[in-house]
Amino acid sequence: MRATDIIAKKRDGKALSGGEIRWFINQYVAEALPDYQMAALLMAVFLKGMNGGEQAALTDAMLHSGRSYKPEVFGGSAADKHSTGGVGDKVSLILAPLAAAAGLKVPMTSGRGLGHTGGTLDKLESISGFRTRLSDEEFLAQMDELGVAMIGQSPDFVPADMKMYRLRDVTATVESIPLIAASIMSKKIGEGISSLVLDVKTGSGAFMKSLEDARRLAGAMVDIGAAHGVRCRALLTAMDQPLGRAVGHSLEILECIEILRTGEGMADLLDLTVELTAQMLFLEGKYTDLGQGREVCRGLLSDGSAYQRFRRMVRAQGGDLAMVDEPSRLPRAERREVIRAGTSGFVRRLDALAIGKLVQGLGGGRAVITDSIDYGVGVWIERKIGDRVKEGDPLVTVHHNGRGVEGLERRVADAYEIGEAPGPRRAILGQVDPST
Amino acid sequence: MRATDIIAKKRDGKALSGGEIRWFINQYVAEALPDYQMAALLMAVFLKGMNGGEQAALTDAMLHSGRSYKPEVFGGSAADKHSTGGVGDKVSLILAPLAAAAGLKVPMTSGRGLGHTGGTLDKLESISGFRTRLSDEEFLAQMDELGVAMIGQSPDFVPADMKMYRLRDVTATVESIPLIAASIMSKKIGEGISSLVLDVKTGSGAFMKSLEDARRLAGAMVDIGAAHGVRCRALLTAMDQPLGRAVGHSLEILECIEILRTGEGMADLLDLTVELTAQMLFLEGKYTDLGQGREVCRGLLSDGSAYQRFRRMVRAQGGDLAMVDEPSRLPRAERREVIRAGTSGFVRRLDALAIGKLVQGLGGGRAVITDSIDYGVGVWIERKIGDRVKEGDPLVTVHHNGRGVEGLERRVADAYEIGEAPGPRRAILGQVDPST
Repeated sequence: MRATDIIAKKRDGKALSGGEIRWFINQYVAEALPDYQMAALLMAVFLKGMNGGEQAALTDAMLHSGRSYKPEVFGGSAADKHSTGGVGDKVSLILAPLAAAAGLKVPMTSGRGLGHTGGTLDKLESISGFRTRLSDEEFLAQMDELGVAMIGQSPDFVPADMKMYRLRDVTATVESIPLIAASIMSKKIGEGISSLVLDVKTGSGAFMKSLEDARRLAGAMVDIGAAHGVRCRALLTAMDQPLGRAVGHSLEILECIEILRTGEGMADLLDLTVELTAQMLFLEGKYTDLGQGREVCRGLLSDGSAYQRFRRMVRAQGGDLAMVDEPSRLPRAERREVIRAGTSGFVRRLDALAIGKLVQGLGGGRAVITDSIDYGVGVWIERKIGDRVKEGDPLVTVHHNGRGVEGLERRVADAYEIGEAPGPRRAILGQVDPST
Repeated sequence: MRATDIIAKKRDGKALSGGEIRWFINQYVAEALPDYQMAALLMAVFLKGMNGGEQAALTDAMLHSGRSYKPEVFGGSAADKHSTGGVGDKVSLILAPLAAAAGLKVPMTSGRGLGHTGGTLDKLESISGFRTRLSDEEFLAQMDELGVAMIGQSPDFVPADMKMYRLRDVTATVESIPLIAASIMSKKIGEGISSLVLDVKTGSGAFMKSLEDARRLAGAMVDIGAAHGVRCRALLTAMDQPLGRAVGHSLEILECIEILRTGEGMADLLDLTVELTAQMLFLEGKYTDLGQGREVCRGLLSDGSAYQRFRRMVRAQGGDLAMVDEPSRLPRAERREVIRAGTSGFVRRLDALAIGKLVQGLGGGRAVITDSIDYGVGVWIERKIGDRVKEGDPLVTVHHNGRGVEGLERRVADAYEIGEAPGPRRAILGQVDPST
């Protein structure tokens, strides 16, 4: 095979064969193809797309570019959830121990934050000592004992994705649905799962700005999963405003600990977490009725089972339990500033992207992947969409260390729209199942 | 500026500014941008195109990436012809000395052959000792004395083109009209010419297979020329069958010497050469009437003026004049094989591409640019489109050294179509002038 023939075929809008895709990826990972040929192919894929068969083959080739697991290592089945990311999206931190408490195996690998969205690994690392990199033996032993581990990817796990993602980032080929879908699914399938629930977000704080694009991405991913024998379902969910109340690393851990301890918290976050966990239980066949699954989840949150699982996981991964038991010990910013409403009415809009950027500016996010993070900074949302507000009411409390606070009041005011009637509270906008 | 923003802009189908194009090319030539970012941009240009302003800016940026000439060094004006390449296209070898004999300055830079088409430099080098690389001083002195030089590009001449062409070759981005047009025009304008006649070929042996594509390429090139103050005109010409009788390096030199000596030869080659030269004279304002220009050209061929200019150029560039005066001394293949017609009728079709590939297979062409060339091999066309043939008549004489002769008879028979009525003799199919 010749690389130029394969590039030209995709350039001309033709479908590549599984063999062509496998050859190209294998050669690239083996450093037998230069970055510039992959860059040309990526741009051709960006502009000409890929059909379902090509996407499955691409995922498969990426998945087999390094080490990966099969469900057998977890006793035959395992489940996970993946979110396309948003502002204040801390669902995984509650969902993983909750699903394990409900009897699922949850070998969750996560990523780091970039831009206006935070990363699960970074949030966990705001708990002192928490290790997101475990040896293979540690990881499998923990999965065996607790049924849950939350870790980062080791470099030999799906190396094609790492290499391709870095190249996409510098060649303007990131926002391609087939490439995003293959990237996500290769890593998730490589975890060795039998079921996967996808939370595909849409709205100002999400990667997919339109519901239509979110639906296309969801469809691409569930079909790739089905082609690999993984039971998949995607929920399309709103990311108009931040999820829950906290945005920022320690603050988000704090909010999660509250929910894990009490079973109570901001409804949008709690309901979505319960719904996604119940979908995992459903896909894994634990319950044939979603309502029953939801009830079980709420019970495991209320009775402290999920919380105990979270504590055991933190201890197993080296985290400082004192921070969990006394969240006031978590890293915190030195200053707090309450931003108040300049007018009365109802919150019509609360721009997730603006809040995400604000927190990034405070030092609570990365512009490039090598930036360090200030775990303590963030925003606590006091009023959300639909809430009634009186002039002078607090809108948000900003936790900061003096950095990135220029024009804070104006920026918060711009993120909120307060009007006469409450804005719509959007939550779950749709569900996507495999097409075959 | 950021490379990814520029790539994304073109990817999304927007027009790049002159500043963006200049920055990208300059950074690339300075090795401040990696090949993979240029590869992504090239694929985006391939698929999204470039408008006239972008093409002129790209040409300009490439042109200024290294050393180039202005017409002033040739006393204020100079003219050239460029052909997009075909099989048996030896026009330059006759045209350059002819135009110089007619009083024009012709600072012609040419390229090497690749694939099924031959290169002017390679053909000249079949004359022992002929130097296609001259020092700047030698080149300017020869231009001053003879008004003509036929040379290759020095590495510091339009270096952006060399670097981009190599990358296009391995990223499936060669066949893009804006990229082809900018590549050709940057090199031609950089010669320091005031007028340029373009011979854009179409048909089986040409790069542009359809007349429509040829017209688009021609339009792109003449507009780029006009934007740079170069008087330009393109002729669209047929490349269905090889031009003239010879295909192969020495054989083509031989055919040219015959025409230069006698003013007589195969009509398609002779007429096209005269036409293109007359167009150069017209653009340079030597004659306001094309017919007069043609007459002058025929006269300079008949009276030996063009031939004498050719001899002086060969001598000036170190070539062995004995080979010119006695062409039997030119490199020749050891064996000749006459392939005869298996049926009677008229030649309806003679596939230029098939003949070009046949000669390449004999050793008379390159698959990759580092291949060496067997100057003596080639094909002498005995019957051309429109000719009457009787069974047993010679179709072609193959000059070979035993290499690449498998299935010779069948391949020649396949290249010819002999039927009851003669096929159309197509020559000049159209003319394209700048749109503004």
